[in-house]
Amino acid sequence: MTDDKRITVTYVITAPSHDIEKVSEEIALEQTVEVPRSVVREERIFDEIVGKVISIEKTGSGDISRYLVRIAYPEIVTGFQVPQFMNLLYGNISFKPGIKITGINFSKDFVRAFRGPKFGIEGIRKDAGVFGRPLIATALKPIGTSADQIGAFCYRFSLSGIDIIKDDHGLVDFPFCGFRERVSRCMEAVAKAEGKTGKRALYFPNVTDSFERIMKNIEFGLEAGVGGFLVSPFLVGPDTVRYIAGCDWIDKPLMSHPSFSGNLFTHGDQGISPEVILGKFFRLIGVDCSVYPNFGGRFHFDRETCSAIAHSLTDDQYHLKRSFPTPAGGMHLDTIAETARFYGEDVILLVGGSLYSRSDDLGENVRYFYDEITEQKRLQK
Amino acid sequence: MTDDKRITVTYVITAPSHDIEKVSEEIALEQTVEVPRSVVREERIFDEIVGKVISIEKTGSGDISRYLVRIAYPEIVTGFQVPQFMNLLYGNISFKPGIKITGINFSKDFVRAFRGPKFGIEGIRKDAGVFGRPLIATALKPIGTSADQIGAFCYRFSLSGIDIIKDDHGLVDFPFCGFRERVSRCMEAVAKAEGKTGKRALYFPNVTDSFERIMKNIEFGLEAGVGGFLVSPFLVGPDTVRYIAGCDWIDKPLMSHPSFSGNLFTHGDQGISPEVILGKFFRLIGVDCSVYPNFGGRFHFDRETCSAIAHSLTDDQYHLKRSFPTPAGGMHLDTIAETARFYGEDVILLVGGSLYSRSDDLGENVRYFYDEITEQKRLQK
Repeated sequence: MTDDKRITVTYVITAPSHDIEKVSEEIALEQTVEVPRSVVREERIFDEIVGKVISIEKTGSGDISRYLVRIAYPEIVTGFQVPQFMNLLYGNISFKPGIKITGINFSKDFVRAFRGPKFGIEGIRKDAGVFGRPLIATALKPIGTSADQIGAFCYRFSLSGIDIIKDDHGLVDFPFCGFRERVSRCMEAVAKAEGKTGKRALYFPNVTDSFERIMKNIEFGLEAGVGGFLVSPFLVGPDTVRYIAGCDWIDKPLMSHPSFSGNLFTHGDQGISPEVILGKFFRLIGVDCSVYPNFGGRFHFDRETCSAIAHSLTDDQYHLKRSFPTPAGGMHLDTIAETARFYGEDVILLVGGSLYSRSDDLGENVRYFYDEITEQKRLQK
Repeated sequence: MTDDKRITVTYVITAPSHDIEKVSEEIALEQTVEVPRSVVREERIFDEIVGKVISIEKTGSGDISRYLVRIAYPEIVTGFQVPQFMNLLYGNISFKPGIKITGINFSKDFVRAFRGPKFGIEGIRKDAGVFGRPLIATALKPIGTSADQIGAFCYRFSLSGIDIIKDDHGLVDFPFCGFRERVSRCMEAVAKAEGKTGKRALYFPNVTDSFERIMKNIEFGLEAGVGGFLVSPFLVGPDTVRYIAGCDWIDKPLMSHPSFSGNLFTHGDQGISPEVILGKFFRLIGVDCSVYPNFGGRFHFDRETCSAIAHSLTDDQYHLKRSFPTPAGGMHLDTIAETARFYGEDVILLVGGSLYSRSDDLGENVRYFYDEITEQKRLQK
């Protein structure tokens, strides 16, 4: 098999030095044939299906130390589909401590099996009519608020010139705030504000819902003229997102929320590096803007991690469009200028709570937000 | 709000003693309104939506120690649907170290929103025609094997009197082993063996596949007369499984595989206890038999964990049928009698690799398997 038919996964493995080769070989077997080497009776299967350990490199010291291990898997084992790719990546070994996935190189034909983002950075900029600066965004919240009140928030934000307004990712179809009612109120708000300002905010309702309702939510949103859709891949299944992104008739961008995925990222010794999932994988399945916890907020990602995510959403990946890094998670208006400097112009800055709490005048808060990031831009020049 | 309208989650939280109240309150806010207390302007929302910390109990010693914390959430925040329930349970806090979910008490109306297992232990026993002893099961593997060869394995296993034969969970629709071809070969094998022995093995093909193909796989399987379906909830999305389980026309039991979920379970300080997900949650979404790594195999669950999973699949949960505990993951024939003793009769014992490797005579290996667990049963009496 030629190398361009292989997907290479990089692991950091914590293991005693006398075990590292065995542990590495076991991963290559576990993630493919799921039986010990002795049970793989056909040599052809060993050659064409089982992963190949291509390098083992010590990165720490002492007897129990860390090793950088690279394993190349035949792309055919993915079935060129998301669920089996996830299984190959981290199916059974998710149960094994001491294994952390830190990188992945896709093969060309594997990537080509996916459409990727339909809009990407350029498409969203065109829809928003914003070029040469970061986009500014906020969230409608909290759960418990009526659709009318959510609509009122949406109006005040739209009027103030914000670019994107998304539902909080916990806003589903509640009896006290129905999905359709909320979308209707918000679209009325967006249109009314546009009548006054000439600028139309893009509203992204949360379409995350049960299996039988998610597509209906999307249909309703399209008819209402929404700007895009918010969806949580790990709540609805990542392949559901890939399917949505692949539908021609769904001609709006997708914003992902990382709900329920965090446990993959918070350990030094196991799990998966955030940029592999919230960056590379989400972009592959067609996410146009990926929300993730920014540094300095109420979660624990550092600058290096955030930089790696942003890079993996925007680097060169065959035909895939670039996705918008969308840092969020307790970002403060006080430090938003610094965040804008960190990312440069290709970023959606998503500020929720701080935009509600700075003062009672939401419009004034948004103008402050806008000034902070454009002031910062002027200072840069 | 009365207590029976609340879902109570138990956490073990690792935090400094001066912080534990604050950390607990923050969880109650983060998982519901996602804003600080000061931003929850309507008192009604605080009362009706935000979780209530109902107890904090120290379980360790020292300044940084562990606390058992119980938080009661209004059931309405779940939207009575799987994705938002997952978000409430572990959406944003999955990004926070030091928080482990160790238990959950569902409210009655929340459970009533779900159908649960259609078959359960009694239904599967009836289909298999097996009463008063554990069921014995195996897996067809490895990836790379042709559909004809998989069919040949299936024939030899069927002929030997095994109760359930499942696809390996990595067997999807491969060009070298198509889903339909595999199901056809296996059903021919099962029928041919039944003609000789009078006993029909239940074949569970793996229907895990892309969003647009999973239901087609199920339709094909039903037409072919399969015994049930294998599906990996975390690869296709848990709510997809709930949807399948809820369809009247899908009149076959579901077996779940825990692929990609393991990272939730392998840490002392964070994640979710396995019995909450592989037991309680999987049963809620309609899994009739839940595959999980047994103690003493090639993964790291201990006896206590396995016992807790088995208990949560079979305890009293309103109208929910009891699901079959299905331990697997490197179980050896040498110790299978001990495993059978551990679980008692209501268990499906799933042996894969060891059943292939004991000798070249698969039929003889199955007879050994059967004798071990029935011998053990005789000794018990």
